[in-house]
Amino acid sequence: MIDLRSDTVTRPTAEMRREMANACVGDGVIDVDPTVEALEHETARLLGKQAAVYMPSGSMTNQVAVRVHCERGSEFLCEADCHIYHYEQGAFAALSGLIAQTVAGDEGVLKVEHLRHLVRPDDDHCVRTKLLCLENTHNRWGGRVLPQDQVDEVCAWAHANGLRTHLDGARLWNASEATGLEVDRLASGFDSVSVCFSKGLGAPVGSALAGSYEFIQEARRMRKLFGGAMRQAGIIAMGALHAIQSHRSRLHLDHEAARQLADAAASCEALSIRGGRVDTNIVILEVDPDWGTAAELQNRLYECGVNCFAIGPQAIRLVTHLDISPEQIGRACRILQEVTSTAGSVA
Amino acid sequence: MIDLRSDTVTRPTAEMRREMANACVGDGVIDVDPTVEALEHETARLLGKQAAVYMPSGSMTNQVAVRVHCERGSEFLCEADCHIYHYEQGAFAALSGLIAQTVAGDEGVLKVEHLRHLVRPDDDHCVRTKLLCLENTHNRWGGRVLPQDQVDEVCAWAHANGLRTHLDGARLWNASEATGLEVDRLASGFDSVSVCFSKGLGAPVGSALAGSYEFIQEARRMRKLFGGAMRQAGIIAMGALHAIQSHRSRLHLDHEAARQLADAAASCEALSIRGGRVDTNIVILEVDPDWGTAAELQNRLYECGVNCFAIGPQAIRLVTHLDISPEQIGRACRILQEVTSTAGSVA
Amino acid sequence: MIDLRSDTVTRPTAEMRREMANACVGDGVIDVDPTVEALEHETARLLGKQAAVYMPSGSMTNQVAVRVHCERGSEFLCEADCHIYHYEQGAFAALSGLIAQTVAGDEGVLKVEHLRHLVRPDDDHCVRTKLLCLENTHNRWGGRVLPQDQVDEVCAWAHANGLRTHLDGARLWNASEATGLEVDRLASGFDSVSVCFSKGLGAPVGSALAGSYEFIQEARRMRKLFGGAMRQAGIIAMGALHAIQSHRSRLHLDHEAARQLADAAASCEALSIRGGRVDTNIVILEVDPDWGTAAELQNRLYECGVNCFAIGPQAIRLVTHLDISPEQIGRACRILQEVTSTAGSVA
Amino acid sequence: MIDLRSDTVTRPTAEMRREMANACVGDGVIDVDPTVEALEHETARLLGKQAAVYMPSGSMTNQVAVRVHCERGSEFLCEADCHIYHYEQGAFAALSGLIAQTVAGDEGVLKVEHLRHLVRPDDDHCVRTKLLCLENTHNRWGGRVLPQDQVDEVCAWAHANGLRTHLDGARLWNASEATGLEVDRLASGFDSVSVCFSKGLGAPVGSALAGSYEFIQEARRMRKLFGGAMRQAGIIAMGALHAIQSHRSRLHLDHEAARQLADAAASCEALSIRGGRVDTNIVILEVDPDWGTAAELQNRLYECGVNCFAIGPQAIRLVTHLDISPEQIGRACRILQEVTSTAGSVA
Repeated sequence: MIDLRSDTVTRPTAEMRREMANACVGDGVIDVDPTVEALEHETARLLGKQAAVYMPSGSMTNQVAVRVHCERGSEFLCEADCHIYHYEQGAFAALSGLIAQTVAGDEGVLKVEHLRHLVRPDDDHCVRTKLLCLENTHNRWGGRVLPQDQVDEVCAWAHANGLRTHLDGARLWNASEATGLEVDRLASGFDSVSVCFSKGLGAPVGSALAGSYEFIQEARRMRKLFGGAMRQAGIIAMGALHAIQSHRSRLHLDHEAARQLADAAASCEALSIRGGRVDTNIVILEVDPDWGTAAELQNRLYECGVNCFAIGPQAIRLVTHLDISPEQIGRACRILQEVTSTAGSVA
Repeated sequence: MIDLRSDTVTRPTAEMRREMANACVGDGVIDVDPTVEALEHETARLLGKQAAVYMPSGSMTNQVAVRVHCERGSEFLCEADCHIYHYEQGAFAALSGLIAQTVAGDEGVLKVEHLRHLVRPDDDHCVRTKLLCLENTHNRWGGRVLPQDQVDEVCAWAHANGLRTHLDGARLWNASEATGLEVDRLASGFDSVSVCFSKGLGAPVGSALAGSYEFIQEARRMRKLFGGAMRQAGIIAMGALHAIQSHRSRLHLDHEAARQLADAAASCEALSIRGGRVDTNIVILEVDPDWGTAAELQNRLYECGVNCFAIGPQAIRLVTHLDISPEQIGRACRILQEVTSTAGSVA
Repeated sequence: MIDLRSDTVTRPTAEMRREMANACVGDGVIDVDPTVEALEHETARLLGKQAAVYMPSGSMTNQVAVRVHCERGSEFLCEADCHIYHYEQGAFAALSGLIAQTVAGDEGVLKVEHLRHLVRPDDDHCVRTKLLCLENTHNRWGGRVLPQDQVDEVCAWAHANGLRTHLDGARLWNASEATGLEVDRLASGFDSVSVCFSKGLGAPVGSALAGSYEFIQEARRMRKLFGGAMRQAGIIAMGALHAIQSHRSRLHLDHEAARQLADAAASCEALSIRGGRVDTNIVILEVDPDWGTAAELQNRLYECGVNCFAIGPQAIRLVTHLDISPEQIGRACRILQEVTSTAGSVA
Repeated sequence: MIDLRSDTVTRPTAEMRREMANACVGDGVIDVDPTVEALEHETARLLGKQAAVYMPSGSMTNQVAVRVHCERGSEFLCEADCHIYHYEQGAFAALSGLIAQTVAGDEGVLKVEHLRHLVRPDDDHCVRTKLLCLENTHNRWGGRVLPQDQVDEVCAWAHANGLRTHLDGARLWNASEATGLEVDRLASGFDSVSVCFSKGLGAPVGSALAGSYEFIQEARRMRKLFGGAMRQAGIIAMGALHAIQSHRSRLHLDHEAARQLADAAASCEALSIRGGRVDTNIVILEVDPDWGTAAELQNRLYECGVNCFAIGPQAIRLVTHLDISPEQIGRACRILQEVTSTAGSVA
């Protein structure tokens, strides 16, 4: 089975396992875990922030970030298709009582013109607007890299309007690979940034949140509140450290593989590529209703040995990653073409 | 000063005051207040529901309704410009931890095509969708009356998809007057309905929430939680009872007055009417940027004796009500024309 | 029926009704209601605070106070039997996510020795302690007046330990009458104070919260959030103003009536007085189990024309107020003696 | 340094590390991690429950449990010194809006006589009582094992009164070792049970929550909400599996070590043992104020090579575990005696 469901399915390599087994550990709750500390320092350094804190999931890093930035009963602005709003069970409201004011960008890209007038007036009828969240790369828009000049402009606008800024950078490593810009440059406009080690980088378990000393101190406290403070977590933190050091340089292979899949899809009448572009390791294909539904295509691909997700009535998502070989990509391309060349249920 | 800021500014009439002063009262928290009880029965009867509960504000009736309908950590669907989302300080999230999934209708009117696919799948990444909220008349779309066939279709769709339905009917009395349909007909597709006595009806203090016995029993409990249980409230409930009985039949006067204002505005080059229509007692005027801003127009009108609100960078709102005489409307029309015929700041 | 269930059952006098009917009113949400404003000023002045805000209930004033004082995820200290903890549906947690750390005082009176060591250390395992709440008079301890030197000491300790202080003064008027101290003296150690107009003072609907300008500004915002912002509320605010001016001076009559009831109870073998004292207008009687239960006594009294509440398995509460005449008190005393002189169910 | 601060400081053994490095893993969020699944099955089996779910911390298992058991705005009963109330940052309120009604047991042991009358009446003034939480062994009462007949009686009472029951069994393995009763017997009266793998058992990272299929399904959803869903967590789950299999049988060594420490303390004039007993691996020593404070003793012990926590002004806690050798225990006993035989600061 060629597993293109997500880049989260990767398993640790033999070398990663070896290093994890030998990691130096400690009780990070009442004391310090030296490997976790090393990972936090390295993440903060790479992102150009004062400090970072390791957490069990990307959802926790994002939700802790919005909780720390937004005082009780306030709101954040975010793109209408972002992960924080759609795929984290609404924890910002369910746990933290916050409002998300969503706004549709241009194919996932927020510009100042979308945001102007969204900051609420100082009026007791209205909630207080406190934060702007962006997502780079943008998952639901096919791993799209946000144009950096737009990011800079939007962050400047936010700060000029008294808002703080958070970047959901679960796949910021991919954005860096795609643009050639260092992650600290991509992170520079943001007061806080979350990054994930268990997606393209291939580590098991974990994400980190970076920001100022003061922000991270409070985030660390919120990690405890959410139940994310772990003991002897150096074992898994070592996987993340290894991933940062050894797997970042190979991300371009995933991007090439995604483009191969996109090229194959482009030759299929029944398929088109969302937004017409593939920037990184995610390919979202819109399925022509004349052929059939996304659910049908998912099933047909599965029968032929390709596992992927329908993410809408007419859309499927393919994600490339380090557990997929070049040979598998070639095979997946052929299967995609074969399956869509024969009629779907509609025909 | 001709006060067109809102229909909430009306003061009790002499007759209303007389009846309020003589109202029979009781301790409605540990016992029963007979006048409040009478108001609740009458409201339930008019709305065709089993029961109703009186509360100090329309915000409380709406926020209690969403809290009772939506279990912890779930969401409701609502039109992007509705009052519950924008003007109640986000209490659904801030007090109840709920998410509002907003969706833009056609000029404030939600149709099934807008809603299809918005109910979240049964997936741990997603919040659970529980409720659909509509607003009739629609304040931010100029007191627009929702087309009843659309309302019926959308409510049927909601119920077929496992959602409950709530109507923010703060100005449902106006919708009834405008359509000639009884309020129970307008309320028939909804599991709960809130109505306001302190807007067009001209009573001081208070709204009511209506629904099934079971729903209202829990809503009554939530009223206590929110701090809205009042003692000897029969005094003010009597104002609402009087308003229902004596002021409903005069709402057509407010609608005619609004049309007069709209006609006057239509003759002004600098003004256009939002959505091109005036269904009830609210007129929203879009101000031509070539003339100036809404804030400027508001100031100029104020100087000439007309008080109204700018509700956007280029929009002002005028609301007619029982404390405005025909003579005042005539004067307001002339002022509107005079002020906009002379140049604004831009020119 | 002699209604001794609560001092909240009082109905407005003819004079109060007359003044209410003539009250000057306005839209207090978008503008100002002059009578509400006058009530707020007068309350602030009496309590010696910078500002006050009128709300529909005492629960709302208390719950808004703890919400404003306690940032998200913090706790307040309070006496184990207080109203805020027991009788406001846990709104501090249910709406505001706060923790109440309860501590039993000596018969309802908290001293520094009870509180020392309760302020949590600065440790991520622990919530942050932010506020101390007292209640004067103390309802569940029989309308007990807190000894002022203890109040002063405890407030000084709180401030020295970085805590803010709130007084639930629903019946502070009674404490003032009983001690001869002005209410501003009783309120002097507190950052905020809530008082009720619909208890001993005999007004319908309403309470007020007083504190600094800044505190009340935020409390006013929270009143909107809770749905407690009312329009043309001057009608009911006038009842409160009248009550302050005309009914405070007669509270000593209620205290005398309570002492009469207590004296009558003292002569009954089956009854004893909680805490051995009656400071104000509340009498809590402990029922000897050899006679029967509180529920039985409540029923027997009811049959004889006295209405009161059992507030525990062996305790009933009698409350005197302005709707009870001296003649009724005399009758209630005789009924109490007769009912308990005959055997209860146990005998 | 002899580290007696907590049994959470243990580091994985060489064998445990070897097994962890070879664990079979998967993406447990979108799919299944086979090792996590095996751990969950084994935990459920041992505890005699239908299902279990693995989480990153004991705080998360407890807080998810109370959230699932208690509907919005309800409360749970718990012993006044329990971990859920004191050491989990009040997450039950801060994240879930719940109230903890604390009640002091007899030296940590709750009996029916403490609980009777605590279930709130069905009254809109009161929150709804939904759950009873116990803790076995009881941390703040020196690792005390709850008498099983009391546990059974209290659980029966709870169920008879419509409450559900949750056991914080972070150290239930120790209770089982101390009593000779299997953990499923200790868990039998409870609707849910949390157990910890990173305390006495010596695994890094992780706890589990067990209960009915339906309960665990919702708990799994709440784990996602809290940000506790991890990918390829089989690495750390394998440590827990190994710990269950290999380290349970050695817990009696920790108990013997604790008794040795207690015996040594018993011979010190300045020290007494909280509750006069040591049931498991925790020793809480009360320091005679004539000798000095707990903080002083902690410092003196630290200078001599023994690390422990002061847990109150006059109390220190010593915890034994698998990283402490018999030789170290002997040394710690001598240091305890030496340090307390010389004068503290007071003398």
